[in-house]
Amino acid sequence: MKVSELGEFGLIELLAEIASSAINSKDSSWQNLIVGVGDDAAAWQVDGAVQLATTDSLVQDTHFDLNIVTWEELGWKAIAVNLSDIAAMGGAPQYALVSLALPGEVETDDVISLYRGMVKVAARFGVAVVGGNVAASEKTMINVTVLGNLESTQMLTRSAALPGDLIAVTGYLGLSAAGLSMLKQHLKLDVETTLLLRQAHLTPTPRIDEGQILLHRAVKCAIDVSDGLLADLAHICQASKVSARINQKALLIHPALKKNFKTDYLQLALSGGEDYELLFTASTLIMPRLKKTMPCPITVIGEITEGKQGQVDLVDEDGEIVPWQKAGWEHFKSRS
Amino acid sequence: MKVSELGEFGLIELLAEIASSAINSKDSSWQNLIVGVGDDAAAWQVDGAVQLATTDSLVQDTHFDLNIVTWEELGWKAIAVNLSDIAAMGGAPQYALVSLALPGEVETDDVISLYRGMVKVAARFGVAVVGGNVAASEKTMINVTVLGNLESTQMLTRSAALPGDLIAVTGYLGLSAAGLSMLKQHLKLDVETTLLLRQAHLTPTPRIDEGQILLHRAVKCAIDVSDGLLADLAHICQASKVSARINQKALLIHPALKKNFKTDYLQLALSGGEDYELLFTASTLIMPRLKKTMPCPITVIGEITEGKQGQVDLVDEDGEIVPWQKAGWEHFKSRS
Repeated sequence: MKVSELGEFGLIELLAEIASSAINSKDSSWQNLIVGVGDDAAAWQVDGAVQLATTDSLVQDTHFDLNIVTWEELGWKAIAVNLSDIAAMGGAPQYALVSLALPGEVETDDVISLYRGMVKVAARFGVAVVGGNVAASEKTMINVTVLGNLESTQMLTRSAALPGDLIAVTGYLGLSAAGLSMLKQHLKLDVETTLLLRQAHLTPTPRIDEGQILLHRAVKCAIDVSDGLLADLAHICQASKVSARINQKALLIHPALKKNFKTDYLQLALSGGEDYELLFTASTLIMPRLKKTMPCPITVIGEITEGKQGQVDLVDEDGEIVPWQKAGWEHFKSRS
Repeated sequence: MKVSELGEFGLIELLAEIASSAINSKDSSWQNLIVGVGDDAAAWQVDGAVQLATTDSLVQDTHFDLNIVTWEELGWKAIAVNLSDIAAMGGAPQYALVSLALPGEVETDDVISLYRGMVKVAARFGVAVVGGNVAASEKTMINVTVLGNLESTQMLTRSAALPGDLIAVTGYLGLSAAGLSMLKQHLKLDVETTLLLRQAHLTPTPRIDEGQILLHRAVKCAIDVSDGLLADLAHICQASKVSARINQKALLIHPALKKNFKTDYLQLALSGGEDYELLFTASTLIMPRLKKTMPCPITVIGEITEGKQGQVDLVDEDGEIVPWQKAGWEHFKSRS
């Protein structure tokens, strides 16, 4: 079987299985491990605290196109997507390590811009860039690892959703995918919208504070929206062994998205991906209180149900199930 | 200027500079940082202990050729080269995160072999593989980050060599580069030598125990030999603001290397690279005691001198300086 048939998530599960097969309960690394392969970040105990670690890469012509992104934006994004994984665990990011692969003909000034973009978003969240590695390659590839911490062993995971929980999301969805559309198709939109969509796609702001607030307010389950709302909710349902129902009408759609993407704003919001918003679940007791303390809009969009593990149903205003195809971002599979 | 003109080490220095420009002494990440960009691993304090982190990647057709390496060997090597960086700090490796970029047409069975090779060497050193990320790309690229720890704030660094220190190295040098030559040129050597050279190049054993023994025996300065003996010694001299003299005759040359690479065994040992042996310096008081406690041969090959920062002189049996060109592995620069 080719890896294109198994798919990205199959490959990650495979690594999780093979890694677990080597568990040696005498090793302190396994003794202290809390979360291994399969969540937004790995987590292990170090004395009383918890260390978090996540790694993600941006590959030229897979994740980015140097015709539409500046090197500085690319640097920002490479760090930001990793910070977002730490946010999704409720952690505080601390250190970043960068591994670059570059063609020799890239301009040094462009690499300087790349590094500046990295350091800009890192510094904004108190993160020190402490490691670097560079290799020659035909295409540019940026791998970043971010380490973070948690004050206690409580954390946000994908596997803690319970039937009856409400499902909510921070901010707006679909703006990043709309930004990609705009850039690829050279759409001419008004200045404000152009900036909004470009920022959403290229310089997203990770929800670090929001993740920590969720954790302090007793939320247990979260993921960041990188693959798309429906796909990421399916990840939660799979890991938590539950199913979910989303009310299509409840989605908070940004007016600029509705106005400029009249026919597909819903598809963008449901499956666009790369929003780096936090998708989380909380009981009906906790959820109302969150609305008052979060520094950004949060929208309740559905609820966790008892049902087929991993299933996500989308319902319209009449309560009818709207068919949707798995269309979130997945490597090796084309978007439907 | 193109990055090919600036070179690998220039690019890393640039990252170090830009990262340092964002130092904010109020951030705990900077307060706790002990070693940033530019050593074998980054190091920071976590309560009483020290956390180590290093990242390295293997890029297809830059670092490896799928015609001569098996997927399992590739997996082993991708983890081992990172473990070696932890060894060079005197640390104990604990966790590994893997970020893979692969063409869709790779066979799943090959990825399984890759993961098995990774987990095999990880398990041997008590390391848990805890993170995974997969992306599609035209060529295969494997990025690994290894986290480790130290019991105290003492560690081995590149910057601690002092004039008068003796310079020593573990094991044999040049076997890995000889292995690469053998594989690329399809040399037919005897079975034992074939296995020895193949292992040296494709499944090196990181010197984890040896690094920890050096640290416990009050050694302060080490690096792992990845770029080549002379190049890595130059890294030490640069970081420690000293110079060095190597006695060509003192080098421990493996008989199989001498026998099969009659004309270039010396060049392979001096500049071959990817040996993953430990190169270290210690005072004349400490060095003799080390010979008795190390589980592998160590050879004193020269001494640290006061001189031009970063300069390494090679001398022959008559004490004459042998000219050598910088010929260690460096990305973006062809080997001379």
